[in-house]
Amino acid sequence: MTISKTLIPKASHKEVTVELLSIGDELLTGTIVDTNAQWISSKITGAGGIVKRITTVRDRTIEISHVLNECIDRSPGWLIVSGGLGPTYDDKTLQGLGRALGRELILDHRAVKMLRRGYARHNQRLVRNVSRLNEVRFKMARIPKGSIPIQNPVGSAPSICIDIRSGVGTTRIFCLPGVPNEMKAVFSRTILPQIKKSIGKYYLVESMFETIGVSESMLAPTLSGLVDSYPTNDIYLKTHPKGYKMKVPRNRKIRSKPKLNIQIVSKGKDNSHVEARYATVLDALREEINKLGGKIIPSALGKRL
Amino acid sequence: MTISKTLIPKASHKEVTVELLSIGDELLTGTIVDTNAQWISSKITGAGGIVKRITTVRDRTIEISHVLNECIDRSPGWLIVSGGLGPTYDDKTLQGLGRALGRELILDHRAVKMLRRGYARHNQRLVRNVSRLNEVRFKMARIPKGSIPIQNPVGSAPSICIDIRSGVGTTRIFCLPGVPNEMKAVFSRTILPQIKKSIGKYYLVESMFETIGVSESMLAPTLSGLVDSYPTNDIYLKTHPKGYKMKVPRNRKIRSKPKLNIQIVSKGKDNSHVEARYATVLDALREEINKLGGKIIPSALGKRL
Repeated sequence: MTISKTLIPKASHKEVTVELLSIGDELLTGTIVDTNAQWISSKITGAGGIVKRITTVRDRTIEISHVLNECIDRSPGWLIVSGGLGPTYDDKTLQGLGRALGRELILDHRAVKMLRRGYARHNQRLVRNVSRLNEVRFKMARIPKGSIPIQNPVGSAPSICIDIRSGVGTTRIFCLPGVPNEMKAVFSRTILPQIKKSIGKYYLVESMFETIGVSESMLAPTLSGLVDSYPTNDIYLKTHPKGYKMKVPRNRKIRSKPKLNIQIVSKGKDNSHVEARYATVLDALREEINKLGGKIIPSALGKRL
Repeated sequence: MTISKTLIPKASHKEVTVELLSIGDELLTGTIVDTNAQWISSKITGAGGIVKRITTVRDRTIEISHVLNECIDRSPGWLIVSGGLGPTYDDKTLQGLGRALGRELILDHRAVKMLRRGYARHNQRLVRNVSRLNEVRFKMARIPKGSIPIQNPVGSAPSICIDIRSGVGTTRIFCLPGVPNEMKAVFSRTILPQIKKSIGKYYLVESMFETIGVSESMLAPTLSGLVDSYPTNDIYLKTHPKGYKMKVPRNRKIRSKPKLNIQIVSKGKDNSHVEARYATVLDALREEINKLGGKIIPSALGKRL
């Protein structure tokens, strides 16, 4: 029996920690789901980084400033902020960042150039003389002193980057637009390559399979035994309960069997160790599931989430 | 022209603040999107409460404990935690809560009863004598001293509730399962009615409409003017950029027009004021959009997100 799985060739793994900060009232009113944070997390995890925390706050300068200082105090290697860079009254990320860092916002001429380029793409004039419209658009080019603007290849608001020294190291802060295609463009082009470079190469094998007839409780001791037998983060096992399969036999007494998805992740810097650990864990789980009277659903083997 | 909108009759509004805490490695690896937080936020917002912050952390006792203490220090009226209540090695919410509060976990006999009821629903025996399996399942009934277990009407792990006095008030903490249908069942049955009761009735009118030909920058001064002219939270206006409509005229010079969704929310304790504010704001926006050469797309009028 083979389990189809995804093999991402990488090597030489060191811990790279990341925090995400999502900004926007619409995330806290439940108007939209925070798919940005999920997308960024999956990219960072895929590259071998560790997202330790995601925080979501409203469009309030003081709240943004507080949460930024709290993040910086925890000193993650990277802090990726999304949302709140646009021209409207509720776009307050840069004000919050300026306040958190004690730095004034200054009109950055590189950022103005980027804005012009962004508007030119859509044949919209960025009015040159100081008019009301001009002022509104230039808001997007007022960035905390010492930060570096990054061209938005899709929309207009530039992203920014700044390194902040904290007690135990340096945190690189990126502020990205909240509009998903703009965020993704800047992340893929500018941030992900930097994160990958700082991690170096490493190997990761992951699979997800469905089972029937075993519950989380039944498998729990085996799972914790397996995870404990490897150093932290080398093996990750997760069970996802998927309800019950109901069955009404002739005697009309309803019986139900638990359905469970099991996720196996093996990672590390040595390819052969990663593969060997994966195979060992898979064998152990398969044996235990059989022993408990459950079965793995063959058609769904190796389904990747 | 009429704008279809949703009118939720409520009255007598006071500020009820909520924080959400989502726990689970799968949220930080990007394996799943945190739809729980979005769902809970929309219910609380709909009832008139204010979700001020959402935090997501991994299944680590120490990280859970830290973030719980940070939340409690901010003293929200309600703190709703989801995830990490199951029987497996990585379900650590109650250990984190016990540690944060300095309270030991004790086997709660009400919780054991609830577990039995949960398992009985699916004809699964909760083994009586102290076996390994038994121990694993009883883990879900070990709750911080002084907390109250709540029956899980769908799955097995009980939820729990505990009131904690902080500097400026009392925070009511709920811990819910992370499995969406279990979380929703407990939230709808137990938490939402309590939140609604503490808010009292109030009125909310909301609509979303599509426009073409006006950009965020062009509308920004009008938006901030309108919002500034009402007390905090009475009027909420948000523009959602939706890209550009491209047009290639005969001269082959590509022109593009910005597409923008505009969300209007009016709320407060007096129905006639809420309606009047909504109408005033809508008229002002319509006039400004016309003046700027843009238009509202009639078919999509009043589309609710």
